[in-house]
Amino acid sequence: MPAISSKGNLMPQSPIRKLVPYAENAKKNGINVFHLNIGQPDIKTPQVALDAVKNNDIEVLSYARSEGSEVYRDKLTNYYSQNNIHVNANDIVVTTGGSEALLFTIGSITDPGDEIIIPEPFYANYNGFSIASGVKVVPVISSIDDNFALPKIEDFEKLITPKTKAILICNPGNPTGYLYSKEEIEKLKQIVLKHDLFLIADEVYREFAYDGAEHHSVMKENGLEQHAIMIDSVSKRYSMCGARIGCIVSKNQEFIQTAIKFAQARLSPPTYALIASEAALDTPQSYFEDVIEEYVERRNTLITELKKIDGVKVANPKGAFYCVAELPVKDSDDFAQWILEKFHHNNETVMVAPASGFYSTEGEGKNQVRIAYVLNKEDLKRSVEILKLALEQYNQ
Amino acid sequence: MPAISSKGNLMPQSPIRKLVPYAENAKKNGINVFHLNIGQPDIKTPQVALDAVKNNDIEVLSYARSEGSEVYRDKLTNYYSQNNIHVNANDIVVTTGGSEALLFTIGSITDPGDEIIIPEPFYANYNGFSIASGVKVVPVISSIDDNFALPKIEDFEKLITPKTKAILICNPGNPTGYLYSKEEIEKLKQIVLKHDLFLIADEVYREFAYDGAEHHSVMKENGLEQHAIMIDSVSKRYSMCGARIGCIVSKNQEFIQTAIKFAQARLSPPTYALIASEAALDTPQSYFEDVIEEYVERRNTLITELKKIDGVKVANPKGAFYCVAELPVKDSDDFAQWILEKFHHNNETVMVAPASGFYSTEGEGKNQVRIAYVLNKEDLKRSVEILKLALEQYNQ
Repeated sequence: MPAISSKGNLMPQSPIRKLVPYAENAKKNGINVFHLNIGQPDIKTPQVALDAVKNNDIEVLSYARSEGSEVYRDKLTNYYSQNNIHVNANDIVVTTGGSEALLFTIGSITDPGDEIIIPEPFYANYNGFSIASGVKVVPVISSIDDNFALPKIEDFEKLITPKTKAILICNPGNPTGYLYSKEEIEKLKQIVLKHDLFLIADEVYREFAYDGAEHHSVMKENGLEQHAIMIDSVSKRYSMCGARIGCIVSKNQEFIQTAIKFAQARLSPPTYALIASEAALDTPQSYFEDVIEEYVERRNTLITELKKIDGVKVANPKGAFYCVAELPVKDSDDFAQWILEKFHHNNETVMVAPASGFYSTEGEGKNQVRIAYVLNKEDLKRSVEILKLALEQYNQ
Repeated sequence: MPAISSKGNLMPQSPIRKLVPYAENAKKNGINVFHLNIGQPDIKTPQVALDAVKNNDIEVLSYARSEGSEVYRDKLTNYYSQNNIHVNANDIVVTTGGSEALLFTIGSITDPGDEIIIPEPFYANYNGFSIASGVKVVPVISSIDDNFALPKIEDFEKLITPKTKAILICNPGNPTGYLYSKEEIEKLKQIVLKHDLFLIADEVYREFAYDGAEHHSVMKENGLEQHAIMIDSVSKRYSMCGARIGCIVSKNQEFIQTAIKFAQARLSPPTYALIASEAALDTPQSYFEDVIEEYVERRNTLITELKKIDGVKVANPKGAFYCVAELPVKDSDDFAQWILEKFHHNNETVMVAPASGFYSTEGEGKNQVRIAYVLNKEDLKRSVEILKLALEQYNQ
């Protein structure tokens, strides 16, 4: 039998995947499972986007332009300029989700054996995309005790080798909810300029910045034009995770032209999703105001309730819709499985994402979980109550 | 300025891409360009697929399951069994187009430096996907003089090294239109069993087999279960190129489970396109009968007319909707540009795909072009007339 590649063997399973059969089994047994484990918001997609697809008049469902139509990329530049990000249509490559944007970016700037430094905990699939490209993720640890702020410059510099091609951040962060300050982005700027690296910023949660804090994009930094690469997506902004439309934005034209070659090889982003995404750009501002207000209330509810549980430590998220919580358990993988398999309260239980999948340093995050606040406040409150009761029983 | 990767530099430009500005310029000058250069059919997408999307009742455009829903994969198994291909839902991974199916397949079975043998001329993007994965394409030349039939077994065996992981075929072939016989598939079976390789068959043109010939899938071969990997897509079958839904099919569960890890990393195929693809499986048989009849007539028209031109040699395609023609020119890249830039007849001209992009052996195919018969018969006839007049003038 022919062999699977080393790459294929190394590809990680989703950290949540192994829990899915337990959740399905619980549901079969009539237990209601609150899903705190995924970044799939319950927020309604803007009507203007849904309507555009329903009212389409396609007769031949044709390829779209590999890098996205000029009309869509032009409209995107308007959206960005409203966010004080000034780019041209030619600085944008439209991709099939933020996922593909990352794949094309990594492919364009790294060769097998190269390294990318990423503050951890980080979005688990950064590992998958890196392995798929034969690239090594070099983690730099951030700490729950300062809300997962940017690690010290020295910590980055210690890790830089001739193989290092980029630093990758997620801002605001999945799973941390941390929003990098202007000062932190400027520190990163100094490092990447000094060592001639790319700075990749996954900014798909840009809109989800709370408490009056301003999101500071890598695209706003003067002098960083040839180094900054922004990853974006419609998934979270418009609650359109299933569209699979993202983009790469950079003023570095050599990089963009390379990314377009990757885009050409796969021919086209999905046409229906492009119709939805183009229309979504006309979403009224009030939609976002309502959504942000809702998320802030959810966050406040979640954090307040979590802090009431003995032995729980929680980072204070300023953005996105996740938080990382430390639980009074030794092994959150075991606990997350146990709560689905063995625990329920009035026929209800919860599913959380063990944080170990968000670290690449062996053993880190073993007592942490990621909680997504993508449920309404009442369900969140009830979920934390179940978590509290479960922890009491688990630790007996 | 940080550097682009070697991989990024190696990624090929689409062979047609460099002609696009010339085509656009011709159009600006009021010249009608007949596009014989692309595999974008003009055939109408089945109404049942278009309607399903128009009538969708989505409120939150959510992620789909990474490997595709069980409902869709179940329905696919019915479609396959009607084609005498007997598989289970668990043998299928749904992908974002055939492109992603190839990427996941190459990622699952090769590491950087490995080799894949492909009969050439071959679909140009096989090169792109291989380079993106750090894999070397090893071409084995097939000849226009026997319609691009399978090269001799010895020609394959000469090229097999410890780095060889797979043989990749396209059946029926893009760009050749060649339909492999049962005997040829069985020859390939002997090679891959003997050398313990995977046999990847891109069968996205399965329906387009003409003159009563039966398409012989690698999935029909007994004893090949652990070696055969089928690539598929809705793009050509239902004229849904813009959907971006494909799949990988294999009885090798270790391979399928590996491909699913790649699928999980990118989260989800596009949801709207899945709705269209699932509905498309209910397309009435009469749709295909009409489409095949149309293509056969187009092929006959095209080949008959091409053969009338002095110095033109053309392979007789038995499937897909392409043919490769040898022209009385030294450099078809130059000719393809010249006909757009300098030639028109009654304000009309044609765009063809130079065949050099479909070869990886330097210098091969320099006097060949690929012609896609995706236009109606009248336009095809007129296109060949223009080609004839252009050749006369070009060769003066």
